[in-house]
Amino acid sequence: MRLGAAAWGTKEDVATTPSTDQRFGLARHVVLPGPLLLDGGASFGPVEVAYETYGTPAPDASNAILICHALTGDQHVASTHPITGKPGWWTRMVGAGKPVDPARHFIVCANVLGSCLGSSGPASRAEDGQPYAMRFPVITIRDMVRAQALLLDHLGIRQLAAVVGGSMGGMQVLEWAATFPERVRAAVVIASAARHSAQNIAFHEVGRQAIMADPRWKAGDYYGAEPPAAGLAVARMAAHITYLSEAGLTEKFGRRLQSRDAKSFGFDADFQVESYLRHQGISFVDRFDANSYLYITRAMDYFDLAEEHGGRLANAFRGTRTRFCLVSFDSDWLYPTTESRSIVHALNAAGAPVSFVELSSPFGHDAFLLDVPELNRVVDGFIRAGEA
Amino acid sequence: MRLGAAAWGTKEDVATTPSTDQRFGLARHVVLPGPLLLDGGASFGPVEVAYETYGTPAPDASNAILICHALTGDQHVASTHPITGKPGWWTRMVGAGKPVDPARHFIVCANVLGSCLGSSGPASRAEDGQPYAMRFPVITIRDMVRAQALLLDHLGIRQLAAVVGGSMGGMQVLEWAATFPERVRAAVVIASAARHSAQNIAFHEVGRQAIMADPRWKAGDYYGAEPPAAGLAVARMAAHITYLSEAGLTEKFGRRLQSRDAKSFGFDADFQVESYLRHQGISFVDRFDANSYLYITRAMDYFDLAEEHGGRLANAFRGTRTRFCLVSFDSDWLYPTTESRSIVHALNAAGAPVSFVELSSPFGHDAFLLDVPELNRVVDGFIRAGEA
Repeated sequence: MRLGAAAWGTKEDVATTPSTDQRFGLARHVVLPGPLLLDGGASFGPVEVAYETYGTPAPDASNAILICHALTGDQHVASTHPITGKPGWWTRMVGAGKPVDPARHFIVCANVLGSCLGSSGPASRAEDGQPYAMRFPVITIRDMVRAQALLLDHLGIRQLAAVVGGSMGGMQVLEWAATFPERVRAAVVIASAARHSAQNIAFHEVGRQAIMADPRWKAGDYYGAEPPAAGLAVARMAAHITYLSEAGLTEKFGRRLQSRDAKSFGFDADFQVESYLRHQGISFVDRFDANSYLYITRAMDYFDLAEEHGGRLANAFRGTRTRFCLVSFDSDWLYPTTESRSIVHALNAAGAPVSFVELSSPFGHDAFLLDVPELNRVVDGFIRAGEA
Repeated sequence: MRLGAAAWGTKEDVATTPSTDQRFGLARHVVLPGPLLLDGGASFGPVEVAYETYGTPAPDASNAILICHALTGDQHVASTHPITGKPGWWTRMVGAGKPVDPARHFIVCANVLGSCLGSSGPASRAEDGQPYAMRFPVITIRDMVRAQALLLDHLGIRQLAAVVGGSMGGMQVLEWAATFPERVRAAVVIASAARHSAQNIAFHEVGRQAIMADPRWKAGDYYGAEPPAAGLAVARMAAHITYLSEAGLTEKFGRRLQSRDAKSFGFDADFQVESYLRHQGISFVDRFDANSYLYITRAMDYFDLAEEHGGRLANAFRGTRTRFCLVSFDSDWLYPTTESRSIVHALNAAGAPVSFVELSSPFGHDAFLLDVPELNRVVDGFIRAGEA
């Protein structure tokens, strides 16, 4: 399957009225007038936001929890993905009996600005009716959060009981707490960082170069034609290695061969790990837009919360009344524990209430999406403490 | 500059008589009848080997030292590279007053089988006069060593005072000691491993897929046309990240911007680390053949010395009389200290004399090529002990 612009949620493809199929949450799509004043200086609008909700808002919407998704995530946090047909990406955290529970919470998850599942992004149509492609403005994590704030205004949610996210989702959580402190009672930041390191930037740059080196990329103007699937697949493969730990890869694959008894002495995927990576690359291109990958990785690389606040991270949280919970994983080498610890130090310096735990997991960065019961206990306890 | 097959040392391009220009060492090229019986089952010959020598052999050639190069290295260990014009790649280790010194040693360094600086590789011409391209047989580290042994036979070197190499060079050193123990008095293995881990394979697979995704690759038949430079550059960029440590990248680049005061909010190389990586990729394609990159990474991924010896690494060294020296670097996450340690354990189990040290360096895997005085002291002391 090779998809052009039509697959990535231009206005025509996304219902503008709520779905009533509860298996799918309440899929919604709004066009907000904006305009958003972006960090890059541009004024952007109207702003399309695709989102899902689960549960019922309290009369004052005080039970609202915002879930922020990661680089290649989407609004389908706890409902079936419309393209892959797979379950929501965080059903271990969000759902009946989970830390974020539609029985108690009104849960909102929005596709981030720049993405490709219905919110405004490079695949969206500009005023001239053509996809923005690379005319889409370069955005930041703060711009994503500003768009989410517009959505909450639209939904009548003045203050969030909690904002919860892992990886790039955690960056948005930090940005929420820093930009709209009065709207966030509690912030849960998992496997994340307050800035992208040189190594983080380097891996993203490899991915972007892989996409841009694909002749089908055509400076971004590939909508309606074949997309740069090969380049995007390579980008995904490179990134995927960073989501796993060396020990996890060894445990999962080691040097085991794939469906054969001996090496082929050729260039097929002899090793299971090769086959796995190729699959990760190939399956990704059917659900994600290459230009969105460029824009969102750029936003992550630009992210440096301290820089936005005079070079001192503690300044980002000065006077905050938000409660913070930070979780890192000992085998995460993408956003290692040292990154979480430096956030905790800044929160301490700002006098903010913060709980922090490094969990042990063999799964590397991906642990935040996997079955780690201790993670659920930590988040559940933290959220319930705010409801007491 | 874009180079076709002609640039990569087919017979026509490499002098078959020794150069007498001492700045360049003694550049030589021989065609050995072979045939080599390869691990993959094929019989390969004739075998071209391009090599350099430095210093003068003793009458019995007992002062011969073989230097083994890494993935993208070549025979120009201590002499100017013919394409880039840069100094030899290991002048810190090989040269006057260095641990391997032409005043005392007869130094040999050969371009590995499968490479592109004059030894037989995919860019070489087959019997039909056309480049082998992907008709070149898939080779192993042991095959590279077998070709080197043919060269030593040709040079009249029965036994080596030492074999020295880092990274893939270290793999060849291990393979030399395991395959031709009676020909190796001392083995120096730096920043290496006895097998490729799942993560090592994964990074190489990303590089191969980047090359193969480039439409100019044309299933390897690009000689005489534009080579798959874009894919090869991406492969090099991805690999290059693994050669550096996270701390080293942070120290060297951090989040510093490249020739600008503020972010561009575009997709230029805003960050120094992006600019550096792009340069690494672009400059690499002028000196290396993409098909060679495929073949050599495959050989490294196939490398598993224990597997070649009944699954037990100690068996590879049973009864050896070779002295071993192993060095690892604490910030090397490509071949971390644990890999060296498991080799040391195997050597201990085999009763082989071995000295091992983990050196501290911020430079990651690349440390073996850089200015680490302690490395020189260790290797110098070890080699001199064999001359006492």
